[in-house]
Amino acid sequence: MSFRTIEWRDNKVIMIDQTRLPAEEVYNEYTDFQGVAEAIRGMIIRGAPAIGVAAAMGVALGARDIIADTFESFYRQLENVCDVLGRTRPTAVNLFWALERMKRVAQQHRDLNLNSIRELLKAEAISIEAEDLKICREIGRHGAALIKEGATILTHCNAGGLATAGYGTALGVIRAAHEAGKGIKVVADETRPWLQGARLTAWELMKDSIPVTLISDNMAGWLMRNGEIDCCVVGADRIAANGDTANKIGTYSVAVLAKENRIPFYVAAPISTLDLKLSSGEEIPIEERTPTEVTKIQGVAIAPEGVKVRNPAFDVTPARYITGIITEKGVVRGDYEQGLKALVGQ
Amino acid sequence: MSFRTIEWRDNKVIMIDQTRLPAEEVYNEYTDFQGVAEAIRGMIIRGAPAIGVAAAMGVALGARDIIADTFESFYRQLENVCDVLGRTRPTAVNLFWALERMKRVAQQHRDLNLNSIRELLKAEAISIEAEDLKICREIGRHGAALIKEGATILTHCNAGGLATAGYGTALGVIRAAHEAGKGIKVVADETRPWLQGARLTAWELMKDSIPVTLISDNMAGWLMRNGEIDCCVVGADRIAANGDTANKIGTYSVAVLAKENRIPFYVAAPISTLDLKLSSGEEIPIEERTPTEVTKIQGVAIAPEGVKVRNPAFDVTPARYITGIITEKGVVRGDYEQGLKALVGQ
Repeated sequence: MSFRTIEWRDNKVIMIDQTRLPAEEVYNEYTDFQGVAEAIRGMIIRGAPAIGVAAAMGVALGARDIIADTFESFYRQLENVCDVLGRTRPTAVNLFWALERMKRVAQQHRDLNLNSIRELLKAEAISIEAEDLKICREIGRHGAALIKEGATILTHCNAGGLATAGYGTALGVIRAAHEAGKGIKVVADETRPWLQGARLTAWELMKDSIPVTLISDNMAGWLMRNGEIDCCVVGADRIAANGDTANKIGTYSVAVLAKENRIPFYVAAPISTLDLKLSSGEEIPIEERTPTEVTKIQGVAIAPEGVKVRNPAFDVTPARYITGIITEKGVVRGDYEQGLKALVGQ
Repeated sequence: MSFRTIEWRDNKVIMIDQTRLPAEEVYNEYTDFQGVAEAIRGMIIRGAPAIGVAAAMGVALGARDIIADTFESFYRQLENVCDVLGRTRPTAVNLFWALERMKRVAQQHRDLNLNSIRELLKAEAISIEAEDLKICREIGRHGAALIKEGATILTHCNAGGLATAGYGTALGVIRAAHEAGKGIKVVADETRPWLQGARLTAWELMKDSIPVTLISDNMAGWLMRNGEIDCCVVGADRIAANGDTANKIGTYSVAVLAKENRIPFYVAAPISTLDLKLSSGEEIPIEERTPTEVTKIQGVAIAPEGVKVRNPAFDVTPARYITGIITEKGVVRGDYEQGLKALVGQ
């Protein structure tokens, strides 16, 4: 891959600014956790796994700046840092997963001096990033086996290198199939309102010379009906115990259309996206974002002033529409309740 | 209604410029058929019935400028005018219907002097406009009977006053239900790529104080699944003998999602939209428009330079997804083959 999504360098967090792609490839530097929280909220960085990495690095930055004499005081302030980071986006569970993991590291080393704990937190954040990249490659390997030679693959939103530490989940499957010489092609939904498909997926696939055709979201169903799509692969922001999957708004529609046209519909996501505490997707909180994402595009008004708007950022695809969930430990199909639990137990 | 879509005035054709809505309410004047043809091609005016009216008025303008000594010479040139107008948009059949109707008027009065024929063509164009308005009100009356008190109605694209001589087809049903005091609400798909929903439907409903909420196309399925939509009403660009319906790209997806969620899905269109020569929707030509409609919004690039694009402007919804077709002569359900033929025969 020819770009870095997020990186810890010289005690700073560097992120590619995803609000400015594809027009400009700009890298922002963050030196405190408040900056990282703002970057997550403002979608400078987005995508469930990438948000997890960013949150972990945010905790490491926050830990460095905490002034404390005792572990108790340090930890209270660390929890505060985590609370601020945790309030940025409600739907992607990887965010909370990463924060819990960071808090656990602190707790497990409470007997060390605070500077050692700070170093361990930094190391943990960096290793979450490194693990994520490895996990994406494993997801890619498992997923590529499901992709037929010469297949045209529809994807929605961006579950790519830009949504992870690199390589991607859904786009990891696509990259792995491409690298395996399967001669695949990609159709990318533009993914209104935020245009992750048009701005990010098209950009990163073109950068890696993977053939991509951009469509408006409205066109996906029609291409499926015309036999122009062989399978769908998307990412996930949170997966409940029964396999119900929260992902970018519009994913549910793609899944229904795929089922109606007998096209396999796969979800690709790391185990950290599973939230087995939730029995079904009905319990997943859905973020509603600002109306201006719908009424303006790149600052240009496309609707009458003052129009009422709905803007749910995610939807939930019931498990029955999902052909398989591709994780770093393998592919789960059929009985998701059993299969997902077994994976986590491994 | 508080605006005029198209009008014949002082031997000119006046159209509201739909490419500039909702930011500006500008009326363009056309004095020759070439200008009208360009206006149709460039979507200054759009919507199947409105295109039919515009084409008829274009023929009347063209007839005025023909220099001829004999009917044969006049008619050859008139056919030429019709050919130019007929090459502007391929999918909406009302365009061809209007051109045929105008040619028939000329043929039927071939024994009159050419100036009388010119006057008759102008009168015919004006009466096509007047009829269309009346037809929309009848569609509204028949359709409103299907709408429940307090219903939330999803519509796609703009099948409104702006797509017709006034009042609208799908929005005619909505206007009639609103005028009947049913307390309805509208959810408007923004309708990428051209944003007819965001720019036109939201604008004309707000102008008439009909409650409207704007969503990205991606959100329609999710709102349906959440029980927030009671029925869908859309327009049509061409309806085949078996009821298969060509309409704005994305209509097929709305219909599939409605069926999956057991929500009634209605098509509202005048009889002039029927094309009973075509046995099924597979024979309807689908216009593919310029990639820049997808890659740029109001001139602002939203995708990487040089990305490959598909841009079909319409899709075909198979009849089995359609709960009923609402015409000015009544509602057809069930066996469309029989029902549509019977309607036309009336």
